Amino acid sequence: MILYDANAPGPNPTTVRLFAHERGGLEFDVVTIDLVGLENRKRRYLTDVNARGEVPALRLDDGSVVTEITAICGYFDEVAQGGRPLFGETPQERAVIHMWTRRAYLEAVLPFVNYWRGGEAAENAYRGHRILQPEARRSNRLLAERGLNQFDEDLAGGTYLAGREATMADILLYAFMATVIEGEGINWLNVPQRPNVAAWYKRMAAREASKKMLASLPAHFQN
Amino acid sequence: MILYDANAPGPNPTTVRLFAHERGGLEFDVVTIDLVGLENRKRRYLTDVNARGEVPALRLDDGSVVTEITAICGYFDEVAQGGRPLFGETPQERAVIHMWTRRAYLEAVLPFVNYWRGGEAAENAYRGHRILQPEARRSNRLLAERGLNQFDEDLAGGTYLAGREATMADILLYAFMATVIEGEGINWLNVPQRPNVAAWYKRMAAREASKKMLASLPAHFQN
Repeated sequence: MILYDANAPGPNPTTVRLFAHERGGLEFDVVTIDLVGLENRKRRYLTDVNARGEVPALRLDDGSVVTEITAICGYFDEVAQGGRPLFGETPQERAVIHMWTRRAYLEAVLPFVNYWRGGEAAENAYRGHRILQPEARRSNRLLAERGLNQFDEDLAGGTYLAGREATMADILLYAFMATVIEGEGINWLNVPQRPNVAAWYKRMAAREASKKMLASLPAHFQN
Repeated sequence: MILYDANAPGPNPTTVRLFAHERGGLEFDVVTIDLVGLENRKRRYLTDVNARGEVPALRLDDGSVVTEITAICGYFDEVAQGGRPLFGETPQERAVIHMWTRRAYLEAVLPFVNYWRGGEAAENAYRGHRILQPEARRSNRLLAERGLNQFDEDLAGGTYLAGREATMADILLYAFMATVIEGEGINWLNVPQRPNVAAWYKRMAAREASKKMLASLPAHFQN
């Protein structure tokens, strides 16, 4: 397997890195794509790897390519040797983790990513390669705040989103939050007024896999 | 199992209905929630079924509740007796179908649902129970158009999104498109300028499961 990773990892590559550290039992080569130079938007990458120009992407041993971070992590989860599956071990566990992963993405991650994409830094980074929604910046912030408020209620008395163990849902939410808090200074994502989310964030940050992931980020993500 | 379904099925309940028809081998009771009267936003539903006020929801035999349409369908896929799995049979198939399902949702479905939610009909239907984004209506339409244009390229020479067989990805995209085209008249979703999407849409509409799903919709979804 070859993982196409990024030289300036935004939250998508970071999520796959964190997943790989948490999951263990995986062996793959890494090819680093120059996101800063928009290598991912040039013909060679679009033709050979991913017509959508997204990073990360995973080339399987038969040469085919899988994209979408949850699909890449799901594949990793199935082919890893040993360790604990992070998508669940029974149909019910898999359904519950699937539910929390989707909630994390749609109720918090996507709104705060779209909020970030509404600013000038995103315009500069994408240089015309994405349709952005600066006009929806305020409502995207409200959607993200409301989503995180709901997670604060959900986490009351609990440890992780789907129960006592960290799963794909926590990895996704934490990787995105950590990357944009540390790298972009979007500090309203983690405030004392959401004590359960704050405690969960601290718990995630203390995990060995998270430390490895954070240590792998470029300097401007570690301020 | 008990499926909490809706009396005025928007695209989310419709997706689960279509999945159940396609998958087969499932037995569950149905409780119909009065979406028109906002029963799903009242304390009883929020406390007993789904704190997020969303329909559909699936009560498992141990009393717990799973929400999120892809998680419900994923659980159905695992517990159905006989038939063909619609989420794939091998790790690679599952990864590819997962990828296409996520692309369908994020690149087309969510933008055109958010487009619809930017209009007055949505304001009237939700009556304050959702943060809407009328200011982003135009960019949501552009995002959906661009997503569907990409699917038109992806479908060139192919039959279904993930290959020769219909999968969860097709079910999700078709159920949402059919519901809002038939029910809300959003006809720009299916135009002759996207011939491969149009042929795929016709192919999906001709399936027995789709006919059953469409026949179950209220009259205003069948004009």
